[in-house]
Amino acid sequence: MAENREWVRELRPGAEIDEVYAVHSKEVRQRRAGGPFLALTLGDRTGSVSALVWENVEAIGSALVVGGLARIRGQVQRYNQRLQVVVRRATTVPAEEVNESEFIRASRQDPEALWRGIEELIAELADPHLRQLLYRVFSDPEVAQRFRIAPAARSLHHAFRSGLLEHTLSMSLAARGLARHYRLDEGLVIAGALLHDLGKIWELESGASIEYTDDGRLLGHLPMEVLYVDRRIAELSEFPAETRRQLLHILLAHHGEYEYGSPRRPKTPEALVVHIADNLDSKIAGMFEAITSDAGDDEPWTGFSRILERHIYRRVAPTSSARPRGE
Amino acid sequence: MAENREWVRELRPGAEIDEVYAVHSKEVRQRRAGGPFLALTLGDRTGSVSALVWENVEAIGSALVVGGLARIRGQVQRYNQRLQVVVRRATTVPAEEVNESEFIRASRQDPEALWRGIEELIAELADPHLRQLLYRVFSDPEVAQRFRIAPAARSLHHAFRSGLLEHTLSMSLAARGLARHYRLDEGLVIAGALLHDLGKIWELESGASIEYTDDGRLLGHLPMEVLYVDRRIAELSEFPAETRRQLLHILLAHHGEYEYGSPRRPKTPEALVVHIADNLDSKIAGMFEAITSDAGDDEPWTGFSRILERHIYRRVAPTSSARPRGE
Amino acid sequence: MAENREWVRELRPGAEIDEVYAVHSKEVRQRRAGGPFLALTLGDRTGSVSALVWENVEAIGSALVVGGLARIRGQVQRYNQRLQVVVRRATTVPAEEVNESEFIRASRQDPEALWRGIEELIAELADPHLRQLLYRVFSDPEVAQRFRIAPAARSLHHAFRSGLLEHTLSMSLAARGLARHYRLDEGLVIAGALLHDLGKIWELESGASIEYTDDGRLLGHLPMEVLYVDRRIAELSEFPAETRRQLLHILLAHHGEYEYGSPRRPKTPEALVVHIADNLDSKIAGMFEAITSDAGDDEPWTGFSRILERHIYRRVAPTSSARPRGE
Amino acid sequence: MAENREWVRELRPGAEIDEVYAVHSKEVRQRRAGGPFLALTLGDRTGSVSALVWENVEAIGSALVVGGLARIRGQVQRYNQRLQVVVRRATTVPAEEVNESEFIRASRQDPEALWRGIEELIAELADPHLRQLLYRVFSDPEVAQRFRIAPAARSLHHAFRSGLLEHTLSMSLAARGLARHYRLDEGLVIAGALLHDLGKIWELESGASIEYTDDGRLLGHLPMEVLYVDRRIAELSEFPAETRRQLLHILLAHHGEYEYGSPRRPKTPEALVVHIADNLDSKIAGMFEAITSDAGDDEPWTGFSRILERHIYRRVAPTSSARPRGE
Amino acid sequence: MAENREWVRELRPGAEIDEVYAVHSKEVRQRRAGGPFLALTLGDRTGSVSALVWENVEAIGSALVVGGLARIRGQVQRYNQRLQVVVRRATTVPAEEVNESEFIRASRQDPEALWRGIEELIAELADPHLRQLLYRVFSDPEVAQRFRIAPAARSLHHAFRSGLLEHTLSMSLAARGLARHYRLDEGLVIAGALLHDLGKIWELESGASIEYTDDGRLLGHLPMEVLYVDRRIAELSEFPAETRRQLLHILLAHHGEYEYGSPRRPKTPEALVVHIADNLDSKIAGMFEAITSDAGDDEPWTGFSRILERHIYRRVAPTSSARPRGE
Amino acid sequence: MAENREWVRELRPGAEIDEVYAVHSKEVRQRRAGGPFLALTLGDRTGSVSALVWENVEAIGSALVVGGLARIRGQVQRYNQRLQVVVRRATTVPAEEVNESEFIRASRQDPEALWRGIEELIAELADPHLRQLLYRVFSDPEVAQRFRIAPAARSLHHAFRSGLLEHTLSMSLAARGLARHYRLDEGLVIAGALLHDLGKIWELESGASIEYTDDGRLLGHLPMEVLYVDRRIAELSEFPAETRRQLLHILLAHHGEYEYGSPRRPKTPEALVVHIADNLDSKIAGMFEAITSDAGDDEPWTGFSRILERHIYRRVAPTSSARPRGE
Repeated sequence: MAENREWVRELRPGAEIDEVYAVHSKEVRQRRAGGPFLALTLGDRTGSVSALVWENVEAIGSALVVGGLARIRGQVQRYNQRLQVVVRRATTVPAEEVNESEFIRASRQDPEALWRGIEELIAELADPHLRQLLYRVFSDPEVAQRFRIAPAARSLHHAFRSGLLEHTLSMSLAARGLARHYRLDEGLVIAGALLHDLGKIWELESGASIEYTDDGRLLGHLPMEVLYVDRRIAELSEFPAETRRQLLHILLAHHGEYEYGSPRRPKTPEALVVHIADNLDSKIAGMFEAITSDAGDDEPWTGFSRILERHIYRRVAPTSSARPRGE
Repeated sequence: MAENREWVRELRPGAEIDEVYAVHSKEVRQRRAGGPFLALTLGDRTGSVSALVWENVEAIGSALVVGGLARIRGQVQRYNQRLQVVVRRATTVPAEEVNESEFIRASRQDPEALWRGIEELIAELADPHLRQLLYRVFSDPEVAQRFRIAPAARSLHHAFRSGLLEHTLSMSLAARGLARHYRLDEGLVIAGALLHDLGKIWELESGASIEYTDDGRLLGHLPMEVLYVDRRIAELSEFPAETRRQLLHILLAHHGEYEYGSPRRPKTPEALVVHIADNLDSKIAGMFEAITSDAGDDEPWTGFSRILERHIYRRVAPTSSARPRGE
Repeated sequence: MAENREWVRELRPGAEIDEVYAVHSKEVRQRRAGGPFLALTLGDRTGSVSALVWENVEAIGSALVVGGLARIRGQVQRYNQRLQVVVRRATTVPAEEVNESEFIRASRQDPEALWRGIEELIAELADPHLRQLLYRVFSDPEVAQRFRIAPAARSLHHAFRSGLLEHTLSMSLAARGLARHYRLDEGLVIAGALLHDLGKIWELESGASIEYTDDGRLLGHLPMEVLYVDRRIAELSEFPAETRRQLLHILLAHHGEYEYGSPRRPKTPEALVVHIADNLDSKIAGMFEAITSDAGDDEPWTGFSRILERHIYRRVAPTSSARPRGE
Repeated sequence: MAENREWVRELRPGAEIDEVYAVHSKEVRQRRAGGPFLALTLGDRTGSVSALVWENVEAIGSALVVGGLARIRGQVQRYNQRLQVVVRRATTVPAEEVNESEFIRASRQDPEALWRGIEELIAELADPHLRQLLYRVFSDPEVAQRFRIAPAARSLHHAFRSGLLEHTLSMSLAARGLARHYRLDEGLVIAGALLHDLGKIWELESGASIEYTDDGRLLGHLPMEVLYVDRRIAELSEFPAETRRQLLHILLAHHGEYEYGSPRRPKTPEALVVHIADNLDSKIAGMFEAITSDAGDDEPWTGFSRILERHIYRRVAPTSSARPRGE
Repeated sequence: MAENREWVRELRPGAEIDEVYAVHSKEVRQRRAGGPFLALTLGDRTGSVSALVWENVEAIGSALVVGGLARIRGQVQRYNQRLQVVVRRATTVPAEEVNESEFIRASRQDPEALWRGIEELIAELADPHLRQLLYRVFSDPEVAQRFRIAPAARSLHHAFRSGLLEHTLSMSLAARGLARHYRLDEGLVIAGALLHDLGKIWELESGASIEYTDDGRLLGHLPMEVLYVDRRIAELSEFPAETRRQLLHILLAHHGEYEYGSPRRPKTPEALVVHIADNLDSKIAGMFEAITSDAGDDEPWTGFSRILERHIYRRVAPTSSARPRGE
Repeated sequence: MAENREWVRELRPGAEIDEVYAVHSKEVRQRRAGGPFLALTLGDRTGSVSALVWENVEAIGSALVVGGLARIRGQVQRYNQRLQVVVRRATTVPAEEVNESEFIRASRQDPEALWRGIEELIAELADPHLRQLLYRVFSDPEVAQRFRIAPAARSLHHAFRSGLLEHTLSMSLAARGLARHYRLDEGLVIAGALLHDLGKIWELESGASIEYTDDGRLLGHLPMEVLYVDRRIAELSEFPAETRRQLLHILLAHHGEYEYGSPRRPKTPEALVVHIADNLDSKIAGMFEAITSDAGDDEPWTGFSRILERHIYRRVAPTSSARPRGE
């Protein structure tokens, strides 16, 4: 991260700021004492913060365009346990003058490096049918474009640009390790892992915030990826029926239990490993996201983690072998 | 039912029988007092019954071919609350000499009449896209052949030849009534109802008994019918995306809740009505099957119904308007 | 609906209003900048809205009587995703000058027409005992008076004046259709359907808002209606024990499962059909209420429906046969 | 217990017996080696046992009348972990010649002493309305006769003659102790405790075995006792509405949670105490029944207790203050 | 309670107050109309209340020290259903000038009297091993000091100073009564009851508010007390293994079911009674806390009780034998 | 496996056998046709089978000693879907004449090799406190002796000699791989993994069959290992409190959820990984045990796996990279 920026995640009460932020929302409201004021949401790639304009409402308001950028001067305050910025001045900033990537919440890892990780896993597949299938899927221009930037979830884990890519690669590597340990069909495990959340590229839509698409709500990512993969398989004349059946089974069973939306439960060791690796990777990521939020705090416990429905313990043991958590 | 046959369902303890039955299984066992005896399962379309051969084991055994038919003479006994036949004589009967339909458990309704019911519902569809789709599906020779005879389940309800056809038509009519009452999109409801269990033609396999196929266990009927219907839709160039989305949603949500294997829950009134009609029709059929089993009994309570997990009350109120239950 | 009224449901941000509303609540609070202001809730039969008085607090306040009516002038604003009215002037309006029915949230259907629907169903009953019982129940002056106006729930569905009547008639007709389809005892089904929620006339109390009565919380509508119906049956000397048993069973089982407060689960086809029709009618009504709220919106998804615990999809398919949803 | 009887509970493999037992069932079956044999169930008030007749089938058979008594000579054997008696001789015994109470499974406590315990609790009630109500209920000849002998359950706990009486008194005393400790309304607690399972006198029917009645299955004991008690209250002109409401609430809530068939959950401390005392008394009785079955065993663990869904530990600590468990 | 104090629990809207309160929190915020204001939390042992300072912010602010005491003059107002105090004047009050016990939320019972109750139960133990063990545990200076003041929970029940002591004594007496009624091993029941929540002295930490310790969150009170008690047992050379096993079992099973955090379920009558008494005492206390909150209200229903997940009925029956509820 | 033995797992109907087996049980029963017969259970390390002796009962019976070995001649038959041996001759075989390991169900892996795997993991621990602790634990003679042979469960997975060792090593290696992938505190993960089921050496007792000990049922393996490990930690004067807290947390949380008997849920990434690796290793082992049972079968589906509550698919994909499943 750029050292010299005042990142939203690092704002502290009392600070005077003079920095460029994205304008996520702007609303004119009526002051109780008469006259209007502005309620804003400002943000950068590390998070978002509320802001208020009490004075010079008209002048400042005209400099703030929702979806645009503005240089903000003002003071950070704490209000009801949350921070807010009281804005005293604002000037429009053209998009060309900034590094756009500083304003979108995104994976800390380079998407191109992650993408190469995916490609290496595909190249490694020994079964020619699976390799060909995966190659076709990830060469599809729509997939290649969307998969690079899609988030993996709306809010619980990897809910940011390229989150799907980060999660898919990490969990595929974990699954490969387990497949080798138990001497399973490594090709099926890797193919299943790489495809297990593919449908999320059509399930979620991320602009200012991440929202479900209509297809996402009515069909869901799991059925959508099964439909897509099966259509790709149909194009491969020699794809073995047995391999198709087991691969589709992995996708249909990857949530593990009916109550989590899987229409099948894992009935092969390969399907079990893909499910477990998916589950673990999501939860570990949720833990790390909780641990690194408000990282300045000395508090040993994180806020309530919604994906794990508990508080996470942040302190490391004295002679710990762990690298700094969540880095 | 032929009046003059001794149907399995109507056997009573003490009766002397002389009738043709199908031989479902035959096993040679060792008598405790020395020497072999035969343990059989005999059946016709109304059910099956155990049978034993204590004497002339070799001669009788050679007349009994599993999968074939035999004229059986012997006596019905009660043993441990269940009936069994003690066989004294048996002679092989060629398949040509009997009406084969008397030996397969099947719907009491005429499959061709049921099939015409389906066709009438399709013809009635006002939306040309849905009508064309349904027409194509039910004209597919594989569907036309399998759908006429497939059972609707392995054991819980409609677990007999043409059970799927009987269930599909009955529940589609119930769903149509509800769609009209609530003034919903009748076409979507009928199309969803007709297709909601289509995948069962590939999920179940019925020979001597009804068993799951490999695809049935690994993929399940719900994903299989979604894959099939989507491929048929892809052949119709003008099929509206909105109609596709809502129709597939009905199929994906027809079990109603995640824990019953639905990857989606109903989010439109049409999907809700198809789910409710399916649920009701299965349970009513389960109740009727319990009520009509051992129908000779005066006992007001049926045996334990597995689909409803309870005993069903069989008695009708004194001035009841109901036609004899389960007829 | 009167075309020329500014109904609460149709208010839009920015609008200047000059209309009569009911005053549901009024509270004097202290302005942060010093001096009092008024926080109000205003309403008509289409809904309710917050309102604030910043100026002329004393004068305006004296014109606003909780439980009374007032002509309001002011402006509609959006605040935190919800609308509020900033009131500039208010004058008391005598109840005689308005059509009172415009100010109470109520069924869109005419209660007398609904009541006649109930009476027709009773007249139709072939079993003289059931007909006589139902006639007595609905002729009881307390029932006749309360049943016409009671809501069917506190908040989830049909939570408005005559909601119980609307729900009872709609679900009885749905149940009758299903009883005919499955050739059940139509009389028991209709009698059970008409009585299934009778206890709600004592469970809920609706003044300014709908609240549970003490009996409602301690006894519940299901036991109260069973106690009431059984007392009415006791007055009919020839009422058959078998019919009483099956009718009370329908009432005791109409929530379907123990966890929904049914002390019995349906053990007859008639009890099952009443339960299913009740369940479906409540959920469909919940869907329609969600779909028609904020009906001006183009948004394809409704807000979160509490009774269904999900968002509902509002868009109709292109060549839909449905009448406008929820009309 | 009579010391000189060979009680069923005390039979041991290998023993030669010569004792009178009740004949619960008799069935003629065909020997595999040809010829008939008899399968019997014999019993006394301590339990029941299977028995077989291999020789003199006709002569012995004619001496055995189901529902009657017979002197049995033969030998006890173990077969498949269970005991069975091989009968060599049997002679009919007239009912007048035996003490009938030795042949019915019954409480070990004297029903008249238990009944006096109930009467003392009623006499102790300080509230005249509750005292009068309880007095009327327990003076009702039908209640007085049935309540003395009814079992408390079909199989889980107190499933024997006068089991309801034993359970009601024991749990009422436990509830009274808790009511005093927490200084609750002792009258309501005792009245609720005495009436909480009253409906079981109509729910269960005990002849040779304990079975549900039709009303028991369709209505259940909880609604039946509420209907009965409310009718008795209606006869008392001055019974306070508030006392009725709270008393009926205790009955409606005594299973504690919806999923156990309570249409209400406890909302007063008195209802909570009645529920907890009922729950505890049933479970303690279930533990004691498990502990004292096969009491000759040294095995520290009982068989699987169905009411507690676990094995119970039978051993007492070395310097235990407990009286012998379950005595 | 001192009659002449204006307890927080007794404040009513509109009242003018002049009283000493503890200052729990103080925050400077910015007025929308410009300039700062103070947001406070004030409290005494009966509860806490929000307060605001609009005028003389600097002067008043300097008199208010978090963790200290202040005499407050101002007015009580209702805001959004909750009370708040608008402070006009404040002066610091030295701790020596007040009775400190008036400012800490605490049991209404004398801790020393409660402690003597515990000691009497220990002295009463007939088994010398258990008596010696309990004596050692409660003589441990750390236990003796912490157990006197620890709360029994963070928020649900007995969440106040000496709450653990109050709960432990009350539930031990209830458990003793039940042990005697069922003639169980009274010593094991009392020892188990006295130790069942011992670990809470290390699980919770109560300063300004009650919070979990790190050990409390990572280990929990149940494992901590098992570890502690087992170490004390290890110091007693002759402690019987059988008594240890059954005592530790009671502790491990006292939450009754796995899903409530018990690694074992009760398998002895003694463990069952300790579990039930714990469960009952917590719920009754939760009911009484709900009933006595806002005790001035005439409202028959309490607010939503979180421990019972319902509203509690507060009204007593007309000729109730109960002492005023919750006194 | 010895090629030349007739292993129980490989018996087929119709085979004539002449082989040495262990005698697990022997019972004398009465033939229906008169005279006694013997019912036996025979076994070797691959499983167990029923057997019957109809002739020469006395002579054969005297050669069969429960707990001893015998050479058996006879024929294998199928009876009710299960195999049974009809024994014609039997002679006692002294234990010295056979390789005892052929008669005890045991891990297919060499226990000493597994033990060295454990030692290598300990030696690898970088944290000196953890290394010292683990060294002490596994050097404790009781642990060293019991851990080598203990089973990991009574029936679900690894239910055989050295099953605990096999499971502990396999899951520790899987956990180490995941710890490295996520860069967690590897020492804590490995220490937690090695100790997570230690208590099973006191929970289960394996002689002829695997049974729970009294401590196992009353205390459980999880609390027992926590008590043991904490006592070992207490002997290490410098063991950091923070490391103790996190290590005990891993043990207390390793079942993952309360309902599986964990008194804590994982609140650190290390505890989560130990739980997930334990869960996966048990399930994969359960799948492999199902897949390799009746391995001669061509049937693609295994019998019902109790640990997974489903049937497992056994077929491998055509160009599978997997080594033969379960080898």
